[in-house]
Amino acid sequence: MSDIKIADRIKGTEKNVWVEFTELVSQENPVDLGRGFPDFNPPVHVKNALITAATDDSPFIHQYARVKGHKRLVTALAELYSPIINHNIDWATEILITNGAYGALHTTIQGLINPGDEVIIIEPFFDCYSPMVKVAGGTPIFIPLRKTENTGDVFKSSDFTLDYNEFSSKITKKTKALIFNNPNNPIGKVYSLEECQQIAKLCKENNIIVICDEVYEWITYDDKKHIKMASLPDMFNRTLTLGSAGKSFSVTGWKIGWIIGPVHLMKPCVVVHQNVTNSCSTPMQEAIAIAMETDLGKLRRDDSDCYFKSLAKEMQPKRDLAEEFLKETGFHPVRPDGGYFILVNYTDVMKKSCVTLDNSNEANDYKFIKWMIRNKKISAIPVTVFYSEGHKHLGQNYIRFCFMKVKESFLYKKRR
Amino acid sequence: MSDIKIADRIKGTEKNVWVEFTELVSQENPVDLGRGFPDFNPPVHVKNALITAATDDSPFIHQYARVKGHKRLVTALAELYSPIINHNIDWATEILITNGAYGALHTTIQGLINPGDEVIIIEPFFDCYSPMVKVAGGTPIFIPLRKTENTGDVFKSSDFTLDYNEFSSKITKKTKALIFNNPNNPIGKVYSLEECQQIAKLCKENNIIVICDEVYEWITYDDKKHIKMASLPDMFNRTLTLGSAGKSFSVTGWKIGWIIGPVHLMKPCVVVHQNVTNSCSTPMQEAIAIAMETDLGKLRRDDSDCYFKSLAKEMQPKRDLAEEFLKETGFHPVRPDGGYFILVNYTDVMKKSCVTLDNSNEANDYKFIKWMIRNKKISAIPVTVFYSEGHKHLGQNYIRFCFMKVKESFLYKKRR
Repeated sequence: MSDIKIADRIKGTEKNVWVEFTELVSQENPVDLGRGFPDFNPPVHVKNALITAATDDSPFIHQYARVKGHKRLVTALAELYSPIINHNIDWATEILITNGAYGALHTTIQGLINPGDEVIIIEPFFDCYSPMVKVAGGTPIFIPLRKTENTGDVFKSSDFTLDYNEFSSKITKKTKALIFNNPNNPIGKVYSLEECQQIAKLCKENNIIVICDEVYEWITYDDKKHIKMASLPDMFNRTLTLGSAGKSFSVTGWKIGWIIGPVHLMKPCVVVHQNVTNSCSTPMQEAIAIAMETDLGKLRRDDSDCYFKSLAKEMQPKRDLAEEFLKETGFHPVRPDGGYFILVNYTDVMKKSCVTLDNSNEANDYKFIKWMIRNKKISAIPVTVFYSEGHKHLGQNYIRFCFMKVKESFLYKKRR
Repeated sequence: MSDIKIADRIKGTEKNVWVEFTELVSQENPVDLGRGFPDFNPPVHVKNALITAATDDSPFIHQYARVKGHKRLVTALAELYSPIINHNIDWATEILITNGAYGALHTTIQGLINPGDEVIIIEPFFDCYSPMVKVAGGTPIFIPLRKTENTGDVFKSSDFTLDYNEFSSKITKKTKALIFNNPNNPIGKVYSLEECQQIAKLCKENNIIVICDEVYEWITYDDKKHIKMASLPDMFNRTLTLGSAGKSFSVTGWKIGWIIGPVHLMKPCVVVHQNVTNSCSTPMQEAIAIAMETDLGKLRRDDSDCYFKSLAKEMQPKRDLAEEFLKETGFHPVRPDGGYFILVNYTDVMKKSCVTLDNSNEANDYKFIKWMIRNKKISAIPVTVFYSEGHKHLGQNYIRFCFMKVKESFLYKKRR
């Protein structure tokens, strides 16, 4: 059977940082500050929503859901997002429920990208964008955020900006779409209104579809406001907005995400969905719907414990603690404006700890983290994984920590 | 935005019988004997397993699962299937958990099929096989089961057999895989040991991979025994076995399936999985693992209420009732040896009820069912959807009923 060939489309996409580091973490058992999920319980109303769904008396809660999504969930999503994007979202035709936002990305790219199409990806980027585009036969066109001169004493994610001339210069007749991650993973950048408007202008002028990965939409710090691309004038019609119940409700393992957009862009997504999975878990969708209804009610009353609002408030002290602690340890952090993660320059710590990296071809950030996992029992994720081959040098001095963790997890020194 | 083209790969796969009939059912509200799911509650230990998972105190039950599958679940699967297929299954490398068996089919086909590869599909077939192969750029090669001379007074699914000469004649140098659905949906055929051996022989001689869709593996009637292709000599190495928690535990909405096979065939599946969804719902996987452990214990003790055994016993009276009732109504049923479904020839009922079908291009079985939904408030699924374009005439006089329903659902006349 050694002569059986695997499908060409997946060649070159075999390596996966999550598989590699999950294995290493399970062998070495460090404090896991690598992968992006909480190490504490989800909010009580979310946990209870799953119990309510699980104990529901209707037999239909255990059977196939509607292909495009469980009605109770898409109805709640339409209610939540219609006012935010200034468009009366039709639950029946403008929303598709997917297996997580990861599944939403795959669905969108498979539905829209043809061999030869070019897709703009802003670096650093969530690592799956590039293989997903390649598997669809598209060509990723990478544009790195550029570090601007930093005037203050704190290095921030907003110091990384897009050069619009560079962006313009990369647009060709083949440019089909932009994958726009806001807030950005791994750097934590939250694009300002002006930045979003500039990008929207370029997309409209050049007929580019915008695939908006907004999974960290509710998590912004220091009163930074998240702008939805779909809410800008004339943008709904060319924008697919991807969201995540996992990141919105701190239940990444529930694997429910969604795509919201105009019918002409949703149709190919639905066709892909029919072919890939057909429908998503009914109990998980019911549970998310119940949790969302609770928070929608609180949002309407402007209650401070609406989770969409309280999540970022609960996380801000975690971010601050992480930054302070990492600085004390000798790392140089980039303060994020949003999301779960903080980037740090690790080179001084490496020198101070007299770490000698081996001569293998592996990137230095991989080597440093493997040393840290084995010797300090703490894990992180290398940042070169979030850059294309040609731009890996821009990330090689950084590693990514996740601070969506209990305080004790982060203050790992005190635990040992 | 009307000039935005969708991806070519999905062209021709837009029409989907499940989307169409789900919409019609929701408009007309008939007794739904079309789609394949129970209209009653799952077994108590399965329902309780979900409650146990939902009330678990560990925060990690709500976060990302292992990419290849939650350890507790893959361990249980290895224990369940190792003795059945006579191979000591390695939970770490030989099992992948997917978003339902539907997701498993997509993963397998995307991982193995290259443009130009030919894939043999036996007709009638579960309708998604053909578009899945086409989206991967492969060519489906259709071989219909042929009706043999029926000597008894009952028409049975085993009266449909494969012509091995016809099968052989369709094999070319491009033949990469066979999709083998056993028990078959929609016809309910359970292949005998001899039939499986013949097919295995042809696959070994011609280096063909076998993708075994065995979602109805536990549901066989009249002591018919289900044979796993992977259990036959020298077959494990060229076989991917696909299973479904949804069909095994009567919870189709839980959307957990799996692929079991040798490492060289599993590797491409894992790469696709990384790209499509990354991991599956942790609470759903935990719940299935708990339910499976319960039944594994009973299986070991040979308890009669082990659900893997009792499921078919509970369903056999449903099958018999359905057959009897449909016969009384004037339909001509094909008695199934396995699965959820019963095929009937509807033409006499149509004549007797003086149904006139319109002149549209739609197949007659579609027209008859739409009439039946509107006028008799009962739904079924047309059988032409399970045949290729060239062979639809073989299915046009049949419709498919699902009898995985409470007695009252089936005896619809008494309800009205």
